[in-house]
Amino acid sequence: MSDRDDLCINALRMLAVDTVQKAESGHPGMPMGAAVLAYVLWTRYLRHSPAQPSWPDRDRFVLSAGHASALLYSLLHLTGYDLTLDDLKRFRQWESRTPGHPERDCAPGVEVSTGPLGQGLGNALGLAMAERWLAETFNRPGHDIVDHRTWVLASDGDMMEGISSEVASLAGTLRLGRLNVLYDANQVTLSATTDLTFTEDVGGRFEVCGWHVQRINGMDVDAVDAALGAARADDRPSLIVARTHIGYGSPKKQDTFGAHGEPLGPDEVRATKRALGWPEEPAFHIPDEARAVFRAALDRGAALEAEWQRRVGAHRGAEPDAGNAFARAVAGELPEGWQERLPAFTPRDGDVATRDAGGKVLNALAGVVTNLVGGSADLNPSTKTAMAGLGDFESPHHPSTAPGAPKTQGATGGVWGYAGRNVHFGVREHAMAAAVTGLAVHGGIVPYASTFLSFSDYMRPSIRLASLSKAHVIYVWTHDSLALGEDGPTHQPVEHLASLRAIPGMLVLRPSDATETVEAWRVALTHRDGPVGLILTRQKLPVLDRTALAPATGLAKGAYVLTKDGGSPDVIVIATGSEVSLALAAHAALTRDGISSRVVSMPSWELFEAQPRSYRDTVLPPHVRARVSVEAASPFGWERYVGRDGVIIGVDRFGASAPGPVVMREYGFTAEHVVSAAKQLLASRP
Amino acid sequence: MSDRDDLCINALRMLAVDTVQKAESGHPGMPMGAAVLAYVLWTRYLRHSPAQPSWPDRDRFVLSAGHASALLYSLLHLTGYDLTLDDLKRFRQWESRTPGHPERDCAPGVEVSTGPLGQGLGNALGLAMAERWLAETFNRPGHDIVDHRTWVLASDGDMMEGISSEVASLAGTLRLGRLNVLYDANQVTLSATTDLTFTEDVGGRFEVCGWHVQRINGMDVDAVDAALGAARADDRPSLIVARTHIGYGSPKKQDTFGAHGEPLGPDEVRATKRALGWPEEPAFHIPDEARAVFRAALDRGAALEAEWQRRVGAHRGAEPDAGNAFARAVAGELPEGWQERLPAFTPRDGDVATRDAGGKVLNALAGVVTNLVGGSADLNPSTKTAMAGLGDFESPHHPSTAPGAPKTQGATGGVWGYAGRNVHFGVREHAMAAAVTGLAVHGGIVPYASTFLSFSDYMRPSIRLASLSKAHVIYVWTHDSLALGEDGPTHQPVEHLASLRAIPGMLVLRPSDATETVEAWRVALTHRDGPVGLILTRQKLPVLDRTALAPATGLAKGAYVLTKDGGSPDVIVIATGSEVSLALAAHAALTRDGISSRVVSMPSWELFEAQPRSYRDTVLPPHVRARVSVEAASPFGWERYVGRDGVIIGVDRFGASAPGPVVMREYGFTAEHVVSAAKQLLASRP
Repeated sequence: MSDRDDLCINALRMLAVDTVQKAESGHPGMPMGAAVLAYVLWTRYLRHSPAQPSWPDRDRFVLSAGHASALLYSLLHLTGYDLTLDDLKRFRQWESRTPGHPERDCAPGVEVSTGPLGQGLGNALGLAMAERWLAETFNRPGHDIVDHRTWVLASDGDMMEGISSEVASLAGTLRLGRLNVLYDANQVTLSATTDLTFTEDVGGRFEVCGWHVQRINGMDVDAVDAALGAARADDRPSLIVARTHIGYGSPKKQDTFGAHGEPLGPDEVRATKRALGWPEEPAFHIPDEARAVFRAALDRGAALEAEWQRRVGAHRGAEPDAGNAFARAVAGELPEGWQERLPAFTPRDGDVATRDAGGKVLNALAGVVTNLVGGSADLNPSTKTAMAGLGDFESPHHPSTAPGAPKTQGATGGVWGYAGRNVHFGVREHAMAAAVTGLAVHGGIVPYASTFLSFSDYMRPSIRLASLSKAHVIYVWTHDSLALGEDGPTHQPVEHLASLRAIPGMLVLRPSDATETVEAWRVALTHRDGPVGLILTRQKLPVLDRTALAPATGLAKGAYVLTKDGGSPDVIVIATGSEVSLALAAHAALTRDGISSRVVSMPSWELFEAQPRSYRDTVLPPHVRARVSVEAASPFGWERYVGRDGVIIGVDRFGASAPGPVVMREYGFTAEHVVSAAKQLLASRP
Repeated sequence: MSDRDDLCINALRMLAVDTVQKAESGHPGMPMGAAVLAYVLWTRYLRHSPAQPSWPDRDRFVLSAGHASALLYSLLHLTGYDLTLDDLKRFRQWESRTPGHPERDCAPGVEVSTGPLGQGLGNALGLAMAERWLAETFNRPGHDIVDHRTWVLASDGDMMEGISSEVASLAGTLRLGRLNVLYDANQVTLSATTDLTFTEDVGGRFEVCGWHVQRINGMDVDAVDAALGAARADDRPSLIVARTHIGYGSPKKQDTFGAHGEPLGPDEVRATKRALGWPEEPAFHIPDEARAVFRAALDRGAALEAEWQRRVGAHRGAEPDAGNAFARAVAGELPEGWQERLPAFTPRDGDVATRDAGGKVLNALAGVVTNLVGGSADLNPSTKTAMAGLGDFESPHHPSTAPGAPKTQGATGGVWGYAGRNVHFGVREHAMAAAVTGLAVHGGIVPYASTFLSFSDYMRPSIRLASLSKAHVIYVWTHDSLALGEDGPTHQPVEHLASLRAIPGMLVLRPSDATETVEAWRVALTHRDGPVGLILTRQKLPVLDRTALAPATGLAKGAYVLTKDGGSPDVIVIATGSEVSLALAAHAALTRDGISSRVVSMPSWELFEAQPRSYRDTVLPPHVRARVSVEAASPFGWERYVGRDGVIIGVDRFGASAPGPVVMREYGFTAEHVVSAAKQLLASRP
């Protein structure tokens, strides 16, 4: 370690320490311990361009241990991103650009939102997948326009989370050599030393998954440098287990959990600076020499990017189709005419489950939206989310591609390698969810992820962060109610619709038939500022006869009047998804009985809430207070639309194992029940 | 393998196959492949008493791969549990005792609810922990009254889930030698062969966590027998990686995912029976010889239990205090006088965060409710969930107990070993949640688990199953709103209250001050038929002056009138948790302005809904329609209580990083806002 290294590392340490101390809130310990790792990575390996933070071919850096945000902000400031010392001084303050945990795009260079442990590792998996997919799809011999890495800094806490094992396993199977993880093994967590809770050999865990693993002294610049070089040279995903010391330099707090989550305190800050030979005053001191070392990233980054621009130009010249497709993908544009590929359904198609309709739409779109990439957590045959013939995203060196290898079941057909469009996530819903966020925020890809709606619970921490990050991810959740039948209550969602609708920024779409499913996919591809959940049935449903009903394009407004009436029906029946056809049957029966009713299809609360009041009042006229809602899910929240005096037909307990139609009948999802509820409502009114 | 073994194994296979075929729904493949494992375990190792399925010292069997339910039901029937052939013939039918996936107590011998993958492994962790805690606590030299094992049958899918790694890691750290996992490695999942998604060395993953691992041919009776014996003999947790063949015997479907999740079909059932030398007719055929082998479990179990009863008697004679305490714990009784230990709070205590109040209550209770066992996912210093001086649940052979070992930070004081009451779950919220369900359903223990409310997302799949299983688990979720401040939106819960309230059977309690926190814990200990979530603040709150307000015992009714009024106030302000004191400030301001208002504290929607209408109408008189709700969380669902015309003061977007009071003010959680909302409501009324 040179004196200059030492100076730079301490500059980084102390900048983070002062940042936390100024805020009187935050996590100084990990920045102090991981500063060597960060310094060597950011000054010698990370290929980035601080002045052009959205350069598409930049390396991605993920701080999975988001609590060390002061380290990230310090790095961004030091290397010349548009983040000032004043920003650091406003760490964790109202409307600052330096929030407590990194939030995607809170400042340039913040790629993903982290803090909840393990999530960054999952995002990084997706970022690394995106890089390989784009490289394999768009690079041409002599024209490598996609050629970057994903670097992760992770902590003991990240490694304890189960998602870290899902990531290790899948990244190993996929042999994602561009994924490089630095594990800041300081052996101290928020409340304990790891001997109390965490005695496994983490490196070993990654080795058995096929990773390149090194174990080093993370306080030694040369060791870190050598390890990063070796990691980069290996074609497997790599883990560097770097033994570090939390709170390094603090006389009282080093190697204790006291250094983890609170400021050192003014006295200990001074003592630490003395111990490290650092001037006690002023705070936020950055020696010119250290600044110069970090700021070299500006020129280096500009040169890297300029060189890349030349390569992109040459690529486009030589391969105009690929070049244009790449440019369009990176710009996030959909190809012209994509909507013309959408299929149409009519009642003559017979009954169609919306999962099947969704599969047809997906496959139709896949042919034209050529950067639609995704898959399921081992449920393609059930969720209908395979894109036929478009290949399997796997390592091109996967043993199954060897001649004479046993047949791999589940392959989708087509190419076998990183250009494959179908991702096989395995039974790893959590890593899948975090990974598709990575795919989405990388740029260049429109990702989707699928499982049963009930298992969205496994994805939930990542869904929340996708929403916070405004990541354009499409979730395809099938088997959306009791009606899935025999698999029983463990698999039958009840509370999930309410739970998902409650997440800020999440768009939930529950189409009522095949035709609305087409519209739902149309919205899913164009609604770009957050995740979209498509909620689809296992069971078959009638394709509604739109000649007699309003067109399904009404879905885009969240809710629309399906049936014809004079504008002031006696009763309104609001239904979603599979219950819309049931509501229509009730409507027919009420009509026969001389009662004027209106059926409102409400595939999306969020889209409806976004409409002007005038539209909403047209759909649900305020003076029509006799309202019935029907949704085979928790009644939670439906008072918003039916009022306290209406009737909510929902599911207020867990489901039951029996054939779907039996369960639905026993739980009251029948036209007769809707009719009687409507009549009772009308009878109880003056 | 003897002919008799073969006969028994095929009897088991074919019973499961016929069960699935009769239902025309279910999963035949795993029962066929794992039948050898199940046969050897259930006839030679499992210590159980089919006639007394709740014998406290029975071995626990967990089918983590719950989709193989037909295998479990077949075993229960064959070994003499009260589950008839008619029950099997009603597999997956309405109100049958044999639902699609095992539900706790759907039939005797079904210990836990499984199906969502990985959950059973987590439950088993808790069951094994419970056994060790009870053994260490109640056994006396020469009197081993707790002495059993937890056996798990798990699948490839279980092993892909991240929770399996959390379980492996924690069980290894705790050296839970009574936890024995059989891994049915058939290398085929629902949609693929594992080479597509899952190439890691699973055995190696467990080895690096300190497990005893064997790799065997799972189709070979002798190999399985030897492995089970070796697993039992080793004092580490054990994994047997048993290579098996899904759909074994089916000419067309063996080793394919076609055998996984659908009946073989009548032709293939016949072909399979022919291939295995089994009579094609009748279905549900059980040879007498095979039945006799399985049914031997009845006599063996009765003898085991009788012998145990003798030991319990001797133990009680020699150690009456321990004997009585054991009996009381197993019966699920709380000790007399436990409520007298509950602390009391008054305004003179100054402001008290409800997390701190909760910690005081917990510690007071811990001294008398001596089977209260629990901990946090590495957050004790923040969630205040350590029981001081009551020891750490760890292996008694943990290296930290060696003389001269470095100091373990985070230890709670007191004994160090399996009698420790404090469980250190590590940063493993998911395994924690599944494990406490195991602790609860084992019997003998009142468990709790704690983390930040925001991270309840990680626990969600297990919370749902706890609720479905009616497991008496207490979750302590702190840092319950925006008011936690600087950590920002990744840590600030918004949608979590609504999401948890939406889970059927879940009881959510959000006390308004220290005094209500006492009442919340009182309810948590006595509400036995499902999980209870205590939602507590990070920030300090006033201890309400109950001399001027209604007593906090009203919490038990879910909501109660806090302030005094004439029965017909102009406006009602409904608040929960930390927003109650804010509502009281608004109440005072409104009173000064001559407006009659009522503050309703509503710590629990679920308890309130369970009250008779007459009570509910007293608290929220229907004719008082001017209502304001205040809760620093998603407004989702509040229309239920405020109506469509009321005002919901909530959080409809993500939070922000800044000091808590600033965030709360900026998001509108001020008395002024409540006052103006109330006045506006009143002004807009005729």
